[in-house]
Amino acid sequence: MNLETIQCARERIAPHILTTPLLRMPALDPWLGCRAWVKLECMQGTGAFKLRGAMNRALSLTPEQLAAGIVAASSGNHGKAIAYTAKKLGAKATIVMPRTAPRVKIDAVRALGAEVILCDASERFDVAAQVCRERGATMVPPFNDETVMAGQGTLGLEILEQCPQLDTLVLPLSGGGLLGGVSTAVKAAAPHVKVCGAEPAALPRYTESLKAGHPVTVPQTRPAADALVAQTPGSLCYPYVAANTDAVAAVSDEYTLKAMKLLLMEGKLLAEPSACIGIGAVLEGYLDVRADENVCFVISGGSVGFEQLDQLKEVTYEACC
Amino acid sequence: MNLETIQCARERIAPHILTTPLLRMPALDPWLGCRAWVKLECMQGTGAFKLRGAMNRALSLTPEQLAAGIVAASSGNHGKAIAYTAKKLGAKATIVMPRTAPRVKIDAVRALGAEVILCDASERFDVAAQVCRERGATMVPPFNDETVMAGQGTLGLEILEQCPQLDTLVLPLSGGGLLGGVSTAVKAAAPHVKVCGAEPAALPRYTESLKAGHPVTVPQTRPAADALVAQTPGSLCYPYVAANTDAVAAVSDEYTLKAMKLLLMEGKLLAEPSACIGIGAVLEGYLDVRADENVCFVISGGSVGFEQLDQLKEVTYEACC
Repeated sequence: MNLETIQCARERIAPHILTTPLLRMPALDPWLGCRAWVKLECMQGTGAFKLRGAMNRALSLTPEQLAAGIVAASSGNHGKAIAYTAKKLGAKATIVMPRTAPRVKIDAVRALGAEVILCDASERFDVAAQVCRERGATMVPPFNDETVMAGQGTLGLEILEQCPQLDTLVLPLSGGGLLGGVSTAVKAAAPHVKVCGAEPAALPRYTESLKAGHPVTVPQTRPAADALVAQTPGSLCYPYVAANTDAVAAVSDEYTLKAMKLLLMEGKLLAEPSACIGIGAVLEGYLDVRADENVCFVISGGSVGFEQLDQLKEVTYEACC
Repeated sequence: MNLETIQCARERIAPHILTTPLLRMPALDPWLGCRAWVKLECMQGTGAFKLRGAMNRALSLTPEQLAAGIVAASSGNHGKAIAYTAKKLGAKATIVMPRTAPRVKIDAVRALGAEVILCDASERFDVAAQVCRERGATMVPPFNDETVMAGQGTLGLEILEQCPQLDTLVLPLSGGGLLGGVSTAVKAAAPHVKVCGAEPAALPRYTESLKAGHPVTVPQTRPAADALVAQTPGSLCYPYVAANTDAVAAVSDEYTLKAMKLLLMEGKLLAEPSACIGIGAVLEGYLDVRADENVCFVISGGSVGFEQLDQLKEVTYEACC
């Protein structure tokens, strides 16, 4: 993966995805101590950036491969992205989910025309692999794939065009598909831009791996940022992240939820906790920013149920500086 | 007031207000049955469009008048706008509020450096008038003023520039300052664009007045759209609204709250109930829209406390068509 493959990905997926808004958010400046911008991938088709990678992977298949279908093991944004991609391209999608997945997520994927297979959570990757073998279908991994990463990287090129004055870009970080792709694009096209990742302090796989100099596995936990739950950096993602990222912050649940409430009440934008973790990194004081620095936060997804707002009831936020 | 005075207002206030985002919102299309756009005045300075009119009125004063201060009787967005305007222009603001105003609103106005005078709700206009007499200060009315209306009209010109393909514009309606100004601007600059107002069915002052052919007063009630509580059309606003508006819808509280929840959950945007009433008008079936029609909803303000989200808990929404 490199700037050229990301540029190709961009042309390939352009007819099928939205150019999402990038907004200057002066209402956030006094809280974050910088010139704040947001890139609203929560307004992407299916509500998250995941559509970029899924679409690029599916469009890179041969017509025969595509006709045999695509498969994902995911109850989250990746599964929804694969279902939507298949529908858009006239293909069949099979999404393998844990039996314990919320009804609303199962229904959302079915509404997109995908087949849903329910199984024990621990078996979901085996079941998905079996479906692929039996049907000749193609598994699309959520992050550990160069073509998926190149798709996510298109977000970086879009941001540079929409905000040429950008100084710093802050992204949520889990397996590293988003950060790997975007940081590669940004460092090649605009090397002066700082690129930072924010991961849950409760699941600090990149913080630990970068310290060790190679991918390490951390214990599974359930952070507030419930979409950022990879235990290990993607083996294919790790080198790109390590080479192209200026800083990684490990953000507490407390500050992730403060960031979500700040974005909602001051920014008037609803996003899932995982999408707010970059703002949390600044609020918690992990990323030094200057008052005149143009900092763009990637709001990666908006999959949040109304009942999840309850967890914000007692949350307060204060200016970081 | 006419296109020329609105254009002058635009130049006058430009250094002091934000050009707010106007976004295409495909996520709302299936619910509203049209090509939906939103104009985010909830992201204006002080969180509402009111700043445009307040700023235009203050900038139209002589230096001597401005030095003597400006006064408003308002516990809402207008009061906040006057306080902010005075601060920006280095003048003194006095805001008269009912003793019963929520603490958070009093504090917000004080934080902008304004003096707050608390009194009985029924006395607030008398108290404000007395302050003006004693200090030689100028009262800025919330809507019934041609200069205030011209300021609000600048929103119409901004929308036409940001969305040249616009077919229909839908705005919240109370005394008629916003609709009077914007409809005058839009009908002069782009007569083919339909301009519609949405008011609470519980307080249908324009529906009744347009039927009668002159301003009539309706009983005071407390609609969900709690910023749209004028009992009577502004005497100066009414002729502009009557001449330039294509339709007025009287929207139920139920559909106003459905619209607020729809905008939050599908559009990922938080706005106050009053700002969502235009979306409610389409949801309730009062405005006929076509699938290929570009309809822009003015999201007039975002002044909403977290606890107000509770009222959305049991609210459901369905596609209008």
